[in-house]
Amino acid sequence: MQRLLLFLLAAAAGSGPSFAQTTHSLLPVPKTVRLQEGQLRLRADFRIGVSAPAGDSLLFRAVNRTRATLNRRTGLYFEQETIAPGDTAGLFRVIVTQKQVALPGADEGYHLVISPSGAKLQATTTTGALRGLQTVLQLVQQDSAGYYLPSAVIDDAPRFAWRGLMLDVARHFLPLEALRRNIDAMAVVKLNVLHLHLSDDEGFRVQSKRFPELQRKGSLGQFYTQTEIRELVRYAADRGIVIVPEFDMPGHTTAMLAAYPALASAPGPYQPGPRFRRGDKPLSLPAIMQMIQTTPTPAIDPSHEATYAFLDSFFGEMAGLFPSPWMHIGADENNGVSWKNNPAIVRFMQQQKLADTHALQAYFVRRVHAILRKHNRKTVGWEELAGGPKDLIVQAWSDTAYFHKAVRNNSSILVSKGFYLDLFYPAHAHYRNDLLDASPLVMGGEAALWSEIVDAGNQETRTWPRTGAIAERLWSPATQTDLDDLYRRLFRLSTQLDDLGIDHIGQYERSLRRLAGADAGTLRNLTDILTPVKGYRKLFARLSLPERYTVQSAPLTAVSDIVFVDSEVKRNFRQLVSNWLSTKKNEEAIRIQLLRWKTLAANIRPIPGLEPAIQAHAQRLEAIAGVALEALERRKAGTLTPEWVAQQRPLFAAAGKADGSLELSIVKETEALISGELAPEPTSYPMF
Amino acid sequence: MQRLLLFLLAAAAGSGPSFAQTTHSLLPVPKTVRLQEGQLRLRADFRIGVSAPAGDSLLFRAVNRTRATLNRRTGLYFEQETIAPGDTAGLFRVIVTQKQVALPGADEGYHLVISPSGAKLQATTTTGALRGLQTVLQLVQQDSAGYYLPSAVIDDAPRFAWRGLMLDVARHFLPLEALRRNIDAMAVVKLNVLHLHLSDDEGFRVQSKRFPELQRKGSLGQFYTQTEIRELVRYAADRGIVIVPEFDMPGHTTAMLAAYPALASAPGPYQPGPRFRRGDKPLSLPAIMQMIQTTPTPAIDPSHEATYAFLDSFFGEMAGLFPSPWMHIGADENNGVSWKNNPAIVRFMQQQKLADTHALQAYFVRRVHAILRKHNRKTVGWEELAGGPKDLIVQAWSDTAYFHKAVRNNSSILVSKGFYLDLFYPAHAHYRNDLLDASPLVMGGEAALWSEIVDAGNQETRTWPRTGAIAERLWSPATQTDLDDLYRRLFRLSTQLDDLGIDHIGQYERSLRRLAGADAGTLRNLTDILTPVKGYRKLFARLSLPERYTVQSAPLTAVSDIVFVDSEVKRNFRQLVSNWLSTKKNEEAIRIQLLRWKTLAANIRPIPGLEPAIQAHAQRLEAIAGVALEALERRKAGTLTPEWVAQQRPLFAAAGKADGSLELSIVKETEALISGELAPEPTSYPMF
Repeated sequence: MQRLLLFLLAAAAGSGPSFAQTTHSLLPVPKTVRLQEGQLRLRADFRIGVSAPAGDSLLFRAVNRTRATLNRRTGLYFEQETIAPGDTAGLFRVIVTQKQVALPGADEGYHLVISPSGAKLQATTTTGALRGLQTVLQLVQQDSAGYYLPSAVIDDAPRFAWRGLMLDVARHFLPLEALRRNIDAMAVVKLNVLHLHLSDDEGFRVQSKRFPELQRKGSLGQFYTQTEIRELVRYAADRGIVIVPEFDMPGHTTAMLAAYPALASAPGPYQPGPRFRRGDKPLSLPAIMQMIQTTPTPAIDPSHEATYAFLDSFFGEMAGLFPSPWMHIGADENNGVSWKNNPAIVRFMQQQKLADTHALQAYFVRRVHAILRKHNRKTVGWEELAGGPKDLIVQAWSDTAYFHKAVRNNSSILVSKGFYLDLFYPAHAHYRNDLLDASPLVMGGEAALWSEIVDAGNQETRTWPRTGAIAERLWSPATQTDLDDLYRRLFRLSTQLDDLGIDHIGQYERSLRRLAGADAGTLRNLTDILTPVKGYRKLFARLSLPERYTVQSAPLTAVSDIVFVDSEVKRNFRQLVSNWLSTKKNEEAIRIQLLRWKTLAANIRPIPGLEPAIQAHAQRLEAIAGVALEALERRKAGTLTPEWVAQQRPLFAAAGKADGSLELSIVKETEALISGELAPEPTSYPMF
Repeated sequence: MQRLLLFLLAAAAGSGPSFAQTTHSLLPVPKTVRLQEGQLRLRADFRIGVSAPAGDSLLFRAVNRTRATLNRRTGLYFEQETIAPGDTAGLFRVIVTQKQVALPGADEGYHLVISPSGAKLQATTTTGALRGLQTVLQLVQQDSAGYYLPSAVIDDAPRFAWRGLMLDVARHFLPLEALRRNIDAMAVVKLNVLHLHLSDDEGFRVQSKRFPELQRKGSLGQFYTQTEIRELVRYAADRGIVIVPEFDMPGHTTAMLAAYPALASAPGPYQPGPRFRRGDKPLSLPAIMQMIQTTPTPAIDPSHEATYAFLDSFFGEMAGLFPSPWMHIGADENNGVSWKNNPAIVRFMQQQKLADTHALQAYFVRRVHAILRKHNRKTVGWEELAGGPKDLIVQAWSDTAYFHKAVRNNSSILVSKGFYLDLFYPAHAHYRNDLLDASPLVMGGEAALWSEIVDAGNQETRTWPRTGAIAERLWSPATQTDLDDLYRRLFRLSTQLDDLGIDHIGQYERSLRRLAGADAGTLRNLTDILTPVKGYRKLFARLSLPERYTVQSAPLTAVSDIVFVDSEVKRNFRQLVSNWLSTKKNEEAIRIQLLRWKTLAANIRPIPGLEPAIQAHAQRLEAIAGVALEALERRKAGTLTPEWVAQQRPLFAAAGKADGSLELSIVKETEALISGELAPEPTSYPMF
């Protein structure tokens, strides 16, 4: 019933089954799309034929996956069971002229023509064909007569070469099947780099045969074997995605130092775990900032030659494991205090004429860069390494001063600033990212999900479908900026990913069942419009708890851990209200929604595990929904006075406040029903 | 909303939050349970202490998993992050006197005492402690004040030593994570054997290093590597479960013969795939039976010494991979036609004085049995090998004549007859299984799921929670027979498994979203009471289609592929009707349910992929719900005449018929509202 209402609301809001002629349900939107009259109907006799260079088995696996997906989606029992070399004829033809593995920088363009009598997908490279096949799957439509592809001519190629997703599997480990699901989702939105943050203070996550203590003492048993890594690399490559490994150093290395304390700048001992240890008192934001700047944090000793011998051997092994031409070395957030505290390191700095710990860090990066060059790898690092050797690739994440330093140094740049998924910003805030246009040195960007409060139980809700907005920004023309249309397609993408087995909806629904059992459906009416508080406030609420609450095994099962950052109900309601403000149409749909919210609080029963904030939110929702309903009546009766409106304002101010790390996402829209004004949404949100 | 109604119905039917004093929400029910006054409340300072023989790391992993599950369930952030040797004190104490790995036959008993001031779990063996920890997790309750364990004294031990689940991963492959989820679910219901059917005509699913063509030509790329098998064996052992591998022979070997055609009784060539190839016409049941008896089917040549040299080497390798003391050799369903067609084999039979192909099969089994004995493995096989060496373990599945033959031969017996999950029988039909009591030679049994029409997308809905009923039958006292109580606990188990990550609900809901998109909630009101047609009729409907429809890659996404075999809505409605018949209470709840069904058809919209049968079922449901509502009115008005009742009967007869391999599960219950009589449910169902 909930879904039915959602559908009615969506239809009323104008984002129902009809679709925009230029964007259809394609995400990312191709470079040029011309939809035409007519349809290519899908029937059991639908066949796919492939013309490709001999031995392009990757292409055949991809085409067979496409066939299987169409098969499952349509339930049609296609006659053609598998597509093999020799199957060149078919209603749908795939033509590739050049066999090539996927790498950022490869030609990923394709040309797709669909008419009622057949379809043709042409690409120079296998990778281009993979991208085109994803477009085909997104074009599948249904009507009462069955499934079809609309007639269309599509020319496509990406705007940026490097389109990545960074997952932090160090702070919380993700099982292989979760990584495979993320890769499947990435392929749908044409991302091409999975950047795995494989080591940090909390864990080292790859088997090393040369240095087995890394996984033995640094992983608490949670790591990927080399066999698993090889398989994952192959799985990703099959989908046109390269895995770029990150081994963060010289800071963020507690787990490595737990394994090999001789590498450390201070004697230790070390245990994998968060770098900061707190007392039993909650900390203020300035106190946390102070702690970050002044606490001695574990770091590799850059003054020992033995360090570089270790890293040479280590990176040699990892280069054999990861075929990626890029190796990410982190190089972020080292405050240098451990170095300053070690007299031998201070002496080394004097000998080497290194003015400060920044200079020492630069020295370390230069040494590692030389090692990686020897192993035929390009070095990528977070923005703090900007200004070193020109051919370092700089990943901007926080301070634009580093970005400009990289520009002055003529270094290639990846943009993650504005793309941090763990800040809980809605998709539209990620969608416009000025930094991408700030320099021609930008080669692309990456969505990034740090995992302090993300684990295998909520990672997919945190990442999908929201990452689709970033993927579109990196692939589609810069002129593509319509937010309503983005959201329309984003929620369709969500359904498509669900169909493919991505577990974002599953994780959300399972968590609701866990929290509320048989009442999950009722609770969902509320949680569907609750979103996590934006910025680092949720993380800091966690960090400010007594020490025991920073453990990696803490349960991430609160409502704020599992609600989506983008609320579909909110988007539909917003559009409904926005249309109503200008046309006064569909007031009945608005009224139905408000009535539902007004009666919700009475049905939300106290259940252990539900924060008290949940019932408080429900009550505030009841209050503002009631006021909005009254406002609709008063407007009709002509009694909607400015005085009455002013009296109601505090209710909305209260309802708009965060509580339990959660926000009611529909307060502004509901308030617009009494004020008659709906402000555009912010394009950016505070970080704290 | 749907869930809320379900809850109201359940509460009205008397199976809500209150629980039976003897069975609580325990499944399987322990040998003896005494629940007492008082509660052990769970708070953040809840600690677990362990006393165990040194080096029992398996136990510590199990206790830590229990801690993590409690942690996630309660959201409590327990202070005790991990439990390690030395942590012997705690509010909850686990005491094990003897370290031991799990094997059928090991002591699995435990003694559990819970009081408001603490709890103690005592077991002789680690395995017993594992079983007791599962009981503890099922005892967790919640009230408005939080979570607690009820005071109780429990003494427990299993009725049968061998309690298994057979999964056929040959016909459709299951990914490792699915196997792990099944193992997690098995552990909850205290099963101890995962029997993997690893080879059949359609596929060979394990990597062999000695005979690599087995996976290369026999698996179409879908097999478990030896590393994966070792890991899976360890994963299962950690949960007190042994993996018993089955390599089916001499029949059901097409995939093996595709790899090594020299082993075959006929020249081939062979391709992995179904043994029977059909024409383009649907077949009748007798025609299918005839085909099974007379078609030459691929079989190993038992007359060649080279065959036994191969098997010696093969089983030697597999014995190194699977530590299980048991090896399953299938030995079922070989019609012998390929042997009779081969003059060399006929000659061999004459030389060896083997009267017929049955005798030749017995010869083959004796030879393989000797090989396995050499490799220190006991031989298990399907019932057709009954009558061979006494120490063969016979798995009864179809013809009780074999069972009695095994009894006469004094062989140990496993019961799977009555436990075939792919027959779509409801839990109560599996629950009473007379064969278990038919001989003291019965050492246990196995639920069995053949996978002709089961794949990774629906296997969990097909298996869980239903297998819980079989697990209880194998563990709990024979006196435990209350069906209403079974169903009450079975649906609670379903929620518990969902919480642990088992995907049965997820698979069902995702499939509905795939079929109906935004209308999934509406469709669910119907599919919640649709069940698959019982027996082999659904499989035969598939087999009778033209040849192309037998492919392994056919989509299993129809409604009949994804609905549950046991309907929770039906069980609650049945109990409601049953109570109403004797007490006339809760008529309003019945009326609400009927009204909902009566208006459903109008809302089920035609969607491609939905069989036409769905709308037809909805219309028949509308008709009988309408008649039942009228009957309630007539009963009040005194106009419920026998003539009127008789006139309505054909409507119910029509609604009770299978359509699209689906049945409306609530027809008898609805009919009882007009007839005043509700017959007990059948204890058995037809096979065809």
